[in-house]
Amino acid sequence: MRLEALRSAVLEANLELVRRGLILYTFGNASGIDREGGLVAIKPSGVPYEELKPADLVLTDLDGKIVEGALRPSSDLATHLLLYRAFPAIGGVVHTHSEFATSWAQAGREIPAYGTTHADYFYGPVPVTEELTDDEVGDDYVLNTGHAIVRRFARGAAPGATPIDPLAMPAVLVAGHAPFCWGSTPADAAHHAVVLEAVARMAYYTSTLNAACTGVAQHLLDRHYFRKHGASKTYGQES
Amino acid sequence: MRLEALRSAVLEANLELVRRGLILYTFGNASGIDREGGLVAIKPSGVPYEELKPADLVLTDLDGKIVEGALRPSSDLATHLLLYRAFPAIGGVVHTHSEFATSWAQAGREIPAYGTTHADYFYGPVPVTEELTDDEVGDDYVLNTGHAIVRRFARGAAPGATPIDPLAMPAVLVAGHAPFCWGSTPADAAHHAVVLEAVARMAYYTSTLNAACTGVAQHLLDRHYFRKHGASKTYGQES
Amino acid sequence: MRLEALRSAVLEANLELVRRGLILYTFGNASGIDREGGLVAIKPSGVPYEELKPADLVLTDLDGKIVEGALRPSSDLATHLLLYRAFPAIGGVVHTHSEFATSWAQAGREIPAYGTTHADYFYGPVPVTEELTDDEVGDDYVLNTGHAIVRRFARGAAPGATPIDPLAMPAVLVAGHAPFCWGSTPADAAHHAVVLEAVARMAYYTSTLNAACTGVAQHLLDRHYFRKHGASKTYGQES
Amino acid sequence: MRLEALRSAVLEANLELVRRGLILYTFGNASGIDREGGLVAIKPSGVPYEELKPADLVLTDLDGKIVEGALRPSSDLATHLLLYRAFPAIGGVVHTHSEFATSWAQAGREIPAYGTTHADYFYGPVPVTEELTDDEVGDDYVLNTGHAIVRRFARGAAPGATPIDPLAMPAVLVAGHAPFCWGSTPADAAHHAVVLEAVARMAYYTSTLNAACTGVAQHLLDRHYFRKHGASKTYGQES
Repeated sequence: MRLEALRSAVLEANLELVRRGLILYTFGNASGIDREGGLVAIKPSGVPYEELKPADLVLTDLDGKIVEGALRPSSDLATHLLLYRAFPAIGGVVHTHSEFATSWAQAGREIPAYGTTHADYFYGPVPVTEELTDDEVGDDYVLNTGHAIVRRFARGAAPGATPIDPLAMPAVLVAGHAPFCWGSTPADAAHHAVVLEAVARMAYYTSTLNAACTGVAQHLLDRHYFRKHGASKTYGQES
Repeated sequence: MRLEALRSAVLEANLELVRRGLILYTFGNASGIDREGGLVAIKPSGVPYEELKPADLVLTDLDGKIVEGALRPSSDLATHLLLYRAFPAIGGVVHTHSEFATSWAQAGREIPAYGTTHADYFYGPVPVTEELTDDEVGDDYVLNTGHAIVRRFARGAAPGATPIDPLAMPAVLVAGHAPFCWGSTPADAAHHAVVLEAVARMAYYTSTLNAACTGVAQHLLDRHYFRKHGASKTYGQES
Repeated sequence: MRLEALRSAVLEANLELVRRGLILYTFGNASGIDREGGLVAIKPSGVPYEELKPADLVLTDLDGKIVEGALRPSSDLATHLLLYRAFPAIGGVVHTHSEFATSWAQAGREIPAYGTTHADYFYGPVPVTEELTDDEVGDDYVLNTGHAIVRRFARGAAPGATPIDPLAMPAVLVAGHAPFCWGSTPADAAHHAVVLEAVARMAYYTSTLNAACTGVAQHLLDRHYFRKHGASKTYGQES
Repeated sequence: MRLEALRSAVLEANLELVRRGLILYTFGNASGIDREGGLVAIKPSGVPYEELKPADLVLTDLDGKIVEGALRPSSDLATHLLLYRAFPAIGGVVHTHSEFATSWAQAGREIPAYGTTHADYFYGPVPVTEELTDDEVGDDYVLNTGHAIVRRFARGAAPGATPIDPLAMPAVLVAGHAPFCWGSTPADAAHHAVVLEAVARMAYYTSTLNAACTGVAQHLLDRHYFRKHGASKTYGQES
């Protein structure tokens, strides 16, 4: 029963990516985790989204052993699993090749926090990983993509800084590749992927209009981020 | 009865923003005022547009006291209210994070009057506020956003100029944030937000094609603006 | 009966502009002429496209005297009429504020013939008018817009060149304003407006990718233009 | 019967281009070949896509002699046929004027392999032909376009390099014109045209964000290309 809900949530997250125009053909994938059972549900590899059924989702344990499902899991499975192991607070992971976020990743540039739309979701610049070395792009390439992300977060936003909190920064750009996003649930991860693309698009225009722009001040970043997150949030209908 | 018409008009203005592609998820909000009764109707905070019903709109007085409505008002309420108090001629206010207008706001650049599409609606460059100071981004942040707008209009288009007339310039860019627009009615405010986005998009392309472009001459600005506004207008079917 | 066909053709040309995404709200207008009767049918001013009926179109003679129709004609009527008087071979005129063509017009730059898509329709760079003087932007502003177009064509593509043939160049950019297009019929004029926008969009990207690009060679321009036009054309099913 | 399947496949490939937004009016065309019978099915010239029926497709032999069909074949037929003769392993050819790929072609720039989306499909930069000479743009212009493509592939990716393998690089940009794509089937060729446009769009943004970007390292190019191609591929459900 709990696994059925997980499958539904993961399917729905995958479909949300399609509805929002982030997906071309079969590019991209979303997964979710049942922390109690230690099971991950993920999109199968190369299956068209319009044909996806809950039963097509592949269930694996945190080591990638397939527990249920007749299809091969997404070829990015090892990255998802490492993120779940390294970031225990997250419940869903999304990978897309959405156009503007991917372009920043290809350019090897972090996305500056240019405005309040960004600050509402991402507490600081969206970081970009280092490029993988020759050795890393071998058999364990997909796993090493995950390691590059985790290393980037451990290193912090700037030299000497504290590690980046994955809940305050639910997105990363893999250099020369594309973004990964996450959240407390699969829906949350998909929501972050959609907002990241909008933020990346506006950041592209902003940097063209003003190459010297450094983005919002720290107090505005704080104000907006904590407006939507944490104990003192003032946005929405929850209290 | 009059309040019912206000609710309908405000709901319709919110939906127009969605139809025209200015809204992602729950970003943005529209409000309207009944000047006689001193009552403002505004979108509730964080409610999906597709579920919005007239009864969901929140009615407040000009000090923000909720008069009717079970939901929390938009988190931008205090900015709307200050605009209604400072600009007595306006009847509707709209706030969006539409992509190109927001990008100019993030870049901290006013939108030059590059052509007649602009001049038909905005009598001069669309102004941008100063960035808020640390102190201003505190408890009264939303209210201070309104103050920054009003100060910008009081200062005039250029040093030593007369104040900007909010009816001749129904839009502003809040630096590092996004645009606010207004008009004589909620529909009018939404219309201005849609046109502002189109004007901002074309201005982006124009400034890329010709970085030295200074925009239309004053006589062309006058000709187009007064073609659609004022006693001697020649556009449309009214006489 | 002949006028009924004219009305239908003009209505259809107006709707084609909407279907192709060239129109925001009521911006833009299409007209057609019955050369034998010397009558022009044009869109009324400021009427929403979705409500347009054949009977709403306004019929005028070539001096702008209204012959039939209860509504005011488009505020751009005088430009249309001058084009019909100056270019006797054309049968339809279209004016839009389509985004990329308008951006080139605002930038005051002609659109170079960067490729064969351009060359299939426009025999050389799409010319841009001079800016109107203070005096020209007076009561006869709309008429003077037409004069600026006609002068630009009389002057030729380059100093000392022969005049530009309006059938080989069915488009112009009015500086600081937007494009006008024409053709042998209203449908033809609308078709040219749609292709101009696509060509303007690709020219924008091309000039960003290669600022030094000068466009296709004369022999390629000839080859493509005459592939679709004139006695020896080889495109399509007509022979 | 076999020809009926070919017609269906070619029609479907043409329609896929329309569905994915690569086609304006009648621009572009797809073809397919029955290698055993030496027959090619191609879109007729200038016929609207929405009216295309399988019986409208034109069947020719590899010399362009029409074997079946009442309509004229696409004006680009001679390019398609030369590609089938020069590249024996391909089964479908597609030509479009899709906006970003065409803009790179107009700019005369190859599309660098900026990221893994590119590397999944195109093994290296997408090459651009030389411009045709005056002599080549004569009666045999369309054929000479094919020769320019074949010469470009024979020359290799860089001076002194081995020829480019058309199966590892299923796309080319014709300078000042637009892309041609191909694949093992008409569907495959159309798929490559769609992905090329996405890759060209992201490459445009990437080069704007980082003009010095040289693209992914060779090992990453290898890793991604061979992930989807060849004996050791790991993507999708086939094994």
